Amino acid sequence: MRIDIITVLPELLKSPFEASILKRAIEAQLVEVHFHNLRDYATDNYKSVDDYQFGGGAGMVMLIEPIDKCISKLKGERHYDEVIYMTPDGEQLNQGITNQISLNENIIILCGHYKGVDQRVRDMFVTKEISIGDYVLSGGELAAAVLCDAVIRLIPGVLGNETSALTDSFQDNLLAPPIYTRPRIYKGITVPEILFSGNFPEIEKWREDQAYKRTQERRPDLLKD
Amino acid sequence: MRIDIITVLPELLKSPFEASILKRAIEAQLVEVHFHNLRDYATDNYKSVDDYQFGGGAGMVMLIEPIDKCISKLKGERHYDEVIYMTPDGEQLNQGITNQISLNENIIILCGHYKGVDQRVRDMFVTKEISIGDYVLSGGELAAAVLCDAVIRLIPGVLGNETSALTDSFQDNLLAPPIYTRPRIYKGITVPEILFSGNFPEIEKWREDQAYKRTQERRPDLLKD
Repeated sequence: MRIDIITVLPELLKSPFEASILKRAIEAQLVEVHFHNLRDYATDNYKSVDDYQFGGGAGMVMLIEPIDKCISKLKGERHYDEVIYMTPDGEQLNQGITNQISLNENIIILCGHYKGVDQRVRDMFVTKEISIGDYVLSGGELAAAVLCDAVIRLIPGVLGNETSALTDSFQDNLLAPPIYTRPRIYKGITVPEILFSGNFPEIEKWREDQAYKRTQERRPDLLKD
Repeated sequence: MRIDIITVLPELLKSPFEASILKRAIEAQLVEVHFHNLRDYATDNYKSVDDYQFGGGAGMVMLIEPIDKCISKLKGERHYDEVIYMTPDGEQLNQGITNQISLNENIIILCGHYKGVDQRVRDMFVTKEISIGDYVLSGGELAAAVLCDAVIRLIPGVLGNETSALTDSFQDNLLAPPIYTRPRIYKGITVPEILFSGNFPEIEKWREDQAYKRTQERRPDLLKD
């Protein structure tokens, strides 16, 4: 899989891709991630990538022309399955969408910044608008990093243990059950006895019950789907 | 405001806090952000911070003892309003929670990694569990960065223009209206005429209508609240 990220702040995105699972996935050539600095596609001498909004109001708007130039250049080099724009009014990301995106071959992720992009960018170039949640960030960069992390860990071979992703929250519409590790007793608080029974079918049943109970308490909406 | 982040991967978190708005907020001393490497609180010679889960199953679990040591040390130094654990089965972050958290003086954010923390950490130390969305990440670090970004930009003085945050999506339960900037015509696609009318009450009305229409189309659930 190849991911091209278009941003005015490539330096903000650096460290998440240089640590842990994303780093390993890139080193193992399971995914390629390329950053494109929008300023390199600016068309004036000031390297402008934004301007005041028409009609007045606070906040700058990202210009269409540098974005068009960058996307067109990339599209001239290969086919892209999606041009994704990170925006709080996009479709809400969930594990299902993440699974879907992980099956793509090449995607472009456009990070909004300031007040966002000129609406015509969305009308003309963007194929999918994604929000990572109902809150506002100072830019789409962290949202893009979140999307990449959620997607890349699903690519076969990225996680050491294939079953690890499958027992995570949401993959079966249930939250994960409680988990415990050493020591067995900590400051008087003990781990549930069942986990030491050695009876794995019973442990599995206990975990399913706990997952269901937790989902019912915290997120009954997930059980309705 | 002071934010203490406890993590096994402080290096992953570096760049988001060294760029753009978070960097400026830290430099202007509007917020202090401190990273604590959990390995510095490990109690064995191997600097272990995780172990296999009791009862079997894939994925490692974060040990309670190093987390206890780190949180206890911090609590010995000052009062904390919240100890927040980033986890996909927590309360879903939204702009209302973000507003609330931005009013705190000192908070601790604990990043889960691997399969998450020993359940007893949640029972004994955590006061608030937050999820940034219904998807699984390889760790809580990016989620913590997202929470910090969403919160810090609300601290008075952080955004250059105070009105900028108030016209964002969600602050009034509506998505933001479309925005436009130069050029007026791009590849034949024009900006709506109303924005050039100079009639600011009319422009305001148009924006409200557009925001309402977009919310109704994309997120009717927001209008129900």
